[in-house]
Formats: sequence, C-alpha cells, structure tokens
Amino acid sequence: MSYTYIHKTQYYESDQMGVIHHSNYIRWFEIGRVEFLREAGITLGELMDDGIVFPITDVSAKFLSRGRFDDVLVIETTPTALTKAKMAFDYRILKKEDETVLVTGHTQNVFTNRETGKIMRLPDKYYKKLAAMLE
Amino acid sequence: MSYTYIHKTQYYESDQMGVIHHSNYIRWFEIGRVEFLREAGITLGELMDDGIVFPITDVSAKFLSRGRFDDVLVIETTPTALTKAKMAFDYRILKKEDETVLVTGHTQNVFTNRETGKIMRLPDKYYKKLAAMLE
Amino acid sequence: MSYTYIHKTQYYESDQMGVIHHSNYIRWFEIGRVEFLREAGITLGELMDDGIVFPITDVSAKFLSRGRFDDVLVIETTPTALTKAKMAFDYRILKKEDETVLVTGHTQNVFTNRETGKIMRLPDKYYKKLAAMLE
Amino acid sequence: MSYTYIHKTQYYESDQMGVIHHSNYIRWFEIGRVEFLREAGITLGELMDDGIVFPITDVSAKFLSRGRFDDVLVIETTPTALTKAKMAFDYRILKKEDETVLVTGHTQNVFTNRETGKIMRLPDKYYKKLAAMLE
Repeated sequence: MSYTYIHKTQYYESDQMGVIHHSNYIRWFEIGRVEFLREAGITLGELMDDGIVFPITDVSAKFLSRGRFDDVLVIETTPTALTKAKMAFDYRILKKEDETVLVTGHTQNVFTNRETGKIMRLPDKYYKKLAAMLE
Repeated sequence: MSYTYIHKTQYYESDQMGVIHHSNYIRWFEIGRVEFLREAGITLGELMDDGIVFPITDVSAKFLSRGRFDDVLVIETTPTALTKAKMAFDYRILKKEDETVLVTGHTQNVFTNRETGKIMRLPDKYYKKLAAMLE
Repeated sequence: MSYTYIHKTQYYESDQMGVIHHSNYIRWFEIGRVEFLREAGITLGELMDDGIVFPITDVSAKFLSRGRFDDVLVIETTPTALTKAKMAFDYRILKKEDETVLVTGHTQNVFTNRETGKIMRLPDKYYKKLAAMLE
Repeated sequence: MSYTYIHKTQYYESDQMGVIHHSNYIRWFEIGRVEFLREAGITLGELMDDGIVFPITDVSAKFLSRGRFDDVLVIETTPTALTKAKMAFDYRILKKEDETVLVTGHTQNVFTNRETGKIMRLPDKYYKKLAAMLE
C-alpha cells in the first residue's frame, strides 16, 4: 500500500540554478516514511519514548526532472520490505499538476536501541501495525 | 574582545536569485557564538553534560550586501553583555577578500536548565571564563 | 489584513536540544510573506519575470516558546508598511493546537531591479494589489 | 586521484537524535565534487558563465556510523568515470580524529546546457583538465 503526502516547495529550497536543491528530496523521503508510519498508527515520538530510534542505513535516488519553487509535489511512499530489525521503502516524487516524476528513490532504516545504539527487534505492538500495511 | 571564524559559502547555501539565502547568516551567527564560547574554554557539549542549554531569545540582522557562492566570509563575534542568566553578542559578517560588510546582527541567549526549561544562574566555573573574555 | 499559512514541522527541522532549530522560523517568515503576496495576486516568479526581486534588508525575531517536531504551526503575516520602494511585515508563529505563540518577528524587504541590484519603484500594477491588502 | 576537504560539523546540522542529520552528507558530497573540480582548475561559476551546468542524476549512500556536532570530518572524493557527457565520483566521509568511516557514497552528474536543459558534450578545455585528474 502506497501512502502519499503533499509538499509545496519553498523559496529557500531553491538553488542558484533556479531549481530545487537535490538534497531536499532526500529530506522529503524522510517525510514520506514518517507519514507512512503515522498512517500505520506509529509516531517517531512514541517510538523514542519506548527507547527506539529508526536511523537510515542506505539511500539511493535518481533525479529525472527538475523541480522548481512553487511546485506542488506528491511524495509517494511504498514499503518494500519489513523484518523485525529493518524496513525498506521505495519513493516517487511527482509534480501534482502533470504527474511528471521528478525523483525516484529507495531507503533502508533499522530499528535501533536508543541507549546502546545497537540494532534491536521491533516489539510486536509496532511490528503488527507495520506488517498490516504491507499486506 | 572579538572572535573571528572563517566560513566558505557552499553551493547549497545559494538561492534562485543567485545569492546566499538570508537564513544562512542567522545560522552563522550561531557558529560565531559557539566558537566564541570554545575560545573561552567552554563547549556546548560540556554545558549540556552539566544540564545547561543556551537557547536564543532574540535575534536581529541587517542585510547590507549580498553574499554569493564561493565567497570566503569572516564571522566576527563580539560579546556585548553578560549576566549569570543571559549573554548577548554583536556580529558582523564580511567578505574576506575586500572586507565588504554583508550582514550585521545581534542575539541574546539565556542559560537554561535542560530538564525544567527554566532560566538558571550559570555556575561560576563557566561564568568566570566568559567574564574574562569581556574585560 | 493578516494572512495565515499552516506548516507542519518536520523531523529534519529539529536539533539536538529536541526542539525546532531557530533558523527555521526565519525561513517561515519568508513563507508568510510569499503567501501573503500570492493572496494579493502576486507571485515571486511573476515579479522576477518582470525583472524585480524582493530581497530582505532587516529581520528581527523574539523566541518565546520552543516548537517541536510534529507541531502544526500557524504562520500569521501582517503587512505594517508599504511604499513603492519597500514593504514591511509583522509575524506571529503559533502552535495551532493551543495557540501558544512561539515566535514573533518583523521584516523589511525592498523592491529591487534584478539586473542592476538597485532599489526601484514598484510598478503600479503590483503596488495597487498590495495597497488594497493594507486597507 | 582522491581529493580531501575538511568540514567541521555545525550545531544546526544536528537533529533530535543528537546526531548529524543524514541529508547533510548528501550536501557534503556536493562540496567534495565542487572542490575536486576546483582542484582541477574549474569553478562552477566559470562553467555557468560558459552556459554549462552540472546537475546530479544519481546518488547513493551508506550510513555506517553516526557523526555528531563538533566532529571534524574528512570528505574524500574520488572520480570513478568521466566522459564528455557525464562524470561519476565515489565518496568517503570519515572522522578526522580516528578515521572512522561514517558514510560512503556515489554520484553521477551530467554536463548540461544551461539554456536548453539538454545534456551536452563538455568543451575540450574543461575535459582535458578533468581527464588529467583521472590518470
């Protein structure tokens, strides 16, 4: 199941080529997965209160077309893999207006003990919510 | 006593007018005061380990001339007031090449208990180091 | 006439004190005035196509309370002065949930010829739209 | 031939996990290739004046260990491929202190006509300088 989130690009996200700086898309992948988790009923704040953080281990992106200031973008997030230790997502970022795909990407994050910094097994109460979203 | 820190502007700090986005100067004021504290023998990490944070309460800035990508800038930081509860600084950000002043500014920060979020009195061991810098 | 714009804070806007980094509010003032201009029927893109840019000359802000990741914020923008050469705004940024005021601020921007970089007189077609918003 | 550039992490680059936000490393890859070009005798400004821009088409990164505020980092940039249309780089970002590798990555950029937005063949005067760096 994909989840979509709308982001309007801001002036401060542009660069001197007159386009959106590419590093912003990497940030918007993060928005995508955070909002996906929220859709599954999980907030990062709740995870952190339980001593769990969700750092990224891998990212890749292809920049296909340039976004510009004032574009309304669709961040489309699709889970591609889930275990109790890690979760992966695919992303597509499109212009809402004409559905041009600007960027595609993939990330992997790991469930990590906030104190020790070690990878941990995600407790069942969270895992079940995420697993339900992948069915 | 003023303290100076060199920052070379980066491509990702530019915006679509072909100049450095103004919000970056506000960030560089922060670099200025962090490095001033370090010069006084105090790091933010050490303060935080002691339960002290140093949030900003006021900022003002005048933008006099535009910086550009690849400029080498001088961040000049001058303490203007110090009590056990707060500290204020003046800033000038200049182009190193020709000493054009791009931005002037002022900030005030307060010493705050990290747990309670309340303003506190800075312990003497830190206060003395800062006071010595203002003489 | 005030104009309000909703912004949900993002994870990447937080800092290691667990609060929103103060430089973001300066960026959100920009969102406020850009959206105010749009409400008046003027986009930055249209201005730029006409050879007009709108750089900031002054900003000030008071940070009253700390915002956090996942806060839904209201950016409230109120024009306070308009001539053919410059425009000033007041801002309040509040938590939508309980109307806590996090930050107040003020900016001044000048209408500038994109080629020469010199302050210019705003053409009537734009001036009238803005003047109508201040009545 | 690898090129190294030193970057000290700033407070505003941290996030609420108390580590450097991962999107910054993507920005620092950009610093790496910009400085690599400079080492080859080419600045982005000179390219742009000649109507050439150098947008990114692909990025990937592995986040191996977490950087923190106040870390002094080494950005190590190594060209891996060069044609007249595109150039690829590998990156390693290490802590200077103990040479811990924090992030590895790869990018591809294309030489593009600034007006048309189409991929172009890099003029010889630039190509020769870059080719000399790969030998």
